[in-house]
Amino acid sequence: MFTDILPQNVDNWEGTEKFLRSIVDILLAYIREENDRSSKVLDFHHPKEMEKKIDLTLPQKPYPLQKLLDDCREVLRLGVKTGHPLFFNQISCGLDLVSMAGEWLAATANTNMFTYEISPVYILMEKEVTKRMIELIGWEDGDYIFAPGGAISNLYAMNAARHFHYPRVKPLGASDVPTLCAFTSEDSHYSIGSAAAVMGIGTDNVFNIPTDCFGRMIPDALETKIIQCKQEGYLPFFVAATAGTTVFGAFDPIPQIADICERHKIWLHVDAAWGGGLLLSKKHRYRLKGIERANSVVWNPHKLMGALLQCSICFIKQVGLLFQTNQMSPDYLFQQDKPYDVSYDTGDKAMQCGRHNDIFKLWIMWRSKGMDGYEKQINRLMDLSEYFTEKIKKTEGYEMVIRDPEYLNICFWYVPQGLRNLDQKEKKARLDKVAPKIKAKMMERGTTMVGYQPHKQHPNFFRMIISSQAITEADLDFLIQEIIDIGENL
Amino acid sequence: MFTDILPQNVDNWEGTEKFLRSIVDILLAYIREENDRSSKVLDFHHPKEMEKKIDLTLPQKPYPLQKLLDDCREVLRLGVKTGHPLFFNQISCGLDLVSMAGEWLAATANTNMFTYEISPVYILMEKEVTKRMIELIGWEDGDYIFAPGGAISNLYAMNAARHFHYPRVKPLGASDVPTLCAFTSEDSHYSIGSAAAVMGIGTDNVFNIPTDCFGRMIPDALETKIIQCKQEGYLPFFVAATAGTTVFGAFDPIPQIADICERHKIWLHVDAAWGGGLLLSKKHRYRLKGIERANSVVWNPHKLMGALLQCSICFIKQVGLLFQTNQMSPDYLFQQDKPYDVSYDTGDKAMQCGRHNDIFKLWIMWRSKGMDGYEKQINRLMDLSEYFTEKIKKTEGYEMVIRDPEYLNICFWYVPQGLRNLDQKEKKARLDKVAPKIKAKMMERGTTMVGYQPHKQHPNFFRMIISSQAITEADLDFLIQEIIDIGENL
Repeated sequence: MFTDILPQNVDNWEGTEKFLRSIVDILLAYIREENDRSSKVLDFHHPKEMEKKIDLTLPQKPYPLQKLLDDCREVLRLGVKTGHPLFFNQISCGLDLVSMAGEWLAATANTNMFTYEISPVYILMEKEVTKRMIELIGWEDGDYIFAPGGAISNLYAMNAARHFHYPRVKPLGASDVPTLCAFTSEDSHYSIGSAAAVMGIGTDNVFNIPTDCFGRMIPDALETKIIQCKQEGYLPFFVAATAGTTVFGAFDPIPQIADICERHKIWLHVDAAWGGGLLLSKKHRYRLKGIERANSVVWNPHKLMGALLQCSICFIKQVGLLFQTNQMSPDYLFQQDKPYDVSYDTGDKAMQCGRHNDIFKLWIMWRSKGMDGYEKQINRLMDLSEYFTEKIKKTEGYEMVIRDPEYLNICFWYVPQGLRNLDQKEKKARLDKVAPKIKAKMMERGTTMVGYQPHKQHPNFFRMIISSQAITEADLDFLIQEIIDIGENL
Repeated sequence: MFTDILPQNVDNWEGTEKFLRSIVDILLAYIREENDRSSKVLDFHHPKEMEKKIDLTLPQKPYPLQKLLDDCREVLRLGVKTGHPLFFNQISCGLDLVSMAGEWLAATANTNMFTYEISPVYILMEKEVTKRMIELIGWEDGDYIFAPGGAISNLYAMNAARHFHYPRVKPLGASDVPTLCAFTSEDSHYSIGSAAAVMGIGTDNVFNIPTDCFGRMIPDALETKIIQCKQEGYLPFFVAATAGTTVFGAFDPIPQIADICERHKIWLHVDAAWGGGLLLSKKHRYRLKGIERANSVVWNPHKLMGALLQCSICFIKQVGLLFQTNQMSPDYLFQQDKPYDVSYDTGDKAMQCGRHNDIFKLWIMWRSKGMDGYEKQINRLMDLSEYFTEKIKKTEGYEMVIRDPEYLNICFWYVPQGLRNLDQKEKKARLDKVAPKIKAKMMERGTTMVGYQPHKQHPNFFRMIISSQAITEADLDFLIQEIIDIGENL
């Protein structure tokens, strides 16, 4: 009836081992192919075609192990190779193989992070790793919670800030306080608005502060808006600065923003989900100057640091606040009469109950690089970003959206021959259709992937991300030439 | 400088392969040991001792691969074997090896579920699997989102319910509407209160309805409270029934609760995180009768169905509502001018941005069992629960907390010899200390693990969970005898 492996048939070790080793063979072949630049990044099919190409139905009777192995091969074949050196599509790119091995182990250990009782080593590991990260932020002390992604981390931070200012909202609800309001730059991540929606603060009460030509929040505009809100009867409680914006990779000026927050007694949050990794580089960490003045920081090791999805941490400077904000003290989980020091049970400071083990893959990866190796890797990516920027500037047909990017996002247009001499208005209108066309062709060819979007007055442009450790100069040259090949005659 | 494997040193395939195969050797040895009943479930150490036993620091220089392999062995050795057949401590027990292999693959594919663009196959897989689950719930149609655990899933449901009734809260905040209130049983999961805290509804505005002697919500008490709340000016909007409570495994009477919700026009949510899996059994699914009348359902395949942590789904009956509730439409991610049908991009109905791939491990596991195999596995667990219950009832020194459990939670006391003839008051006071003592000794011995807690008037009792497929009758006999051995002379 069942597949013939453990734990259903407890004696069949041989069959179990054979099956698992066969899976590993498939995964190793995949990794090898992914690292082969002559292989495709993807084999694109439209949803309706894809549905025909692969049978995804759940059967009445069990499928034999051999069929499951075929399934694995097929699924990988039709997927997108996000670890391919020519995949530049997302902020989280690349496949660090030590982190991956760590995730294999975490899957096999399959435990839950809520108590020391069942996660003794991983709980201590979280303490050790976050201690180092808190030092890098520049706090003397601090608290933390690993969360499933930056959006939930930002939600944790905003909720802690509300609890700090208005603890009675937890028992009594938001209708018990006047209208709160929050501030973030117009280039910040949408999860700030999303958190405000969930929390009953309201997206209209998150004010998007204008940015300068680099995509950085303008401090004066922030203070003006705060003063205006106060005059209108709002209660400003939360400012989210961004260290590494999603599209332009801009770093908001934290020191000036921190001054404003201090003057107006507002919680300062720094969303460093993307930019946090720069703290590991002595050369580049100045971009986050002032981050030690934040009340909360979000930092996603699954972005610049290359941990597998997901690995995100919300740091809160005031120790104890996360617990006060989120604790519900269920008897069945966090008993106080356990045989060990229950202050190690982290679960009651989370809004989640069960939590996935996201620490092991980060810890083992960090051990594999050391502080020195990480710094070198990050400096190397910054060098590649400079290389790519210089090359784009010099190559005919390319135009930068922001002339001197601060980080690993390089935003540019490719202007096909026929558009180069048009007047601005017509050029802009036609340019808007170029990136989507090139992207579609790129996906059809399967050679490379890079994202695009419009932004305010700018028509669609490409947003290049250099965050995979696999990237070399030659890969960047390839992308530049590939876009020309596809786009030249559009 | 770096560890000598891909993708840093792109040519070293041999070293890479060797390292990854060595990790797999370690994992296979662990699995083999975990399935050996003569091995320990854990090697317990207090936090301070544990800190001395293992070096968790992050080094300045990279560690060599050999050291990392040693780390892996050491971490596994000091961890808790949650897949051991004698681990009964949590609702999520056991290690399904097909699901584990699925998680290995998902780690290697390392993609993000927000767009069809980078997750074409997995997005279609989610559609296919949830279609079957929606049929099992009994809806004609429905929407879904995979979430990191039941607590976040419940938050999704409560937020969708609020948006359905009061859509203006999303832009304007909760202070724009009168005080909302929600209802759940006093035995429900704490994440309902937690969701209300985060959402700005307030924990005091979640009313805990009394339960009967089986731990099931009393419908009359619910209706009385709803009427009272309305008279007091509250806006009742959400009732959470539970299918499989955390401690007693009780199933609230959904049909009667649904009638009440209809009469008062309140959203009916069913938290079937734990009990949902019974829908796969023709014999036992009657416990969830009426679930098709719910507006939302949470169902965690990482519980009864045995998928690896985490795999949780929030189902919403009204198609489109999740999107309306959560969408923020960021340009950089969900462009409308993509070359494919963008209705397949699921990300904008999530409050998360990035989402881990939780579908593959569920899909491949389900393929390995088929509908028939799953049904058999679940029926078998229910049979084991009955076997254990009957045995406990017949064994001297044991007393049931709830005489006839409905599900796979069996709650009982072990009463040591010396306490059996005391008067009730003294017995109760002393009994409260028995379970913690036995548990501490159990962990010291490392032979088995089972949870305990107090509950209302009841002193500390054990909560046995039978959800691991590895469990046999002999394992249950062992636990019963082990508790006697430890507890007899307390």
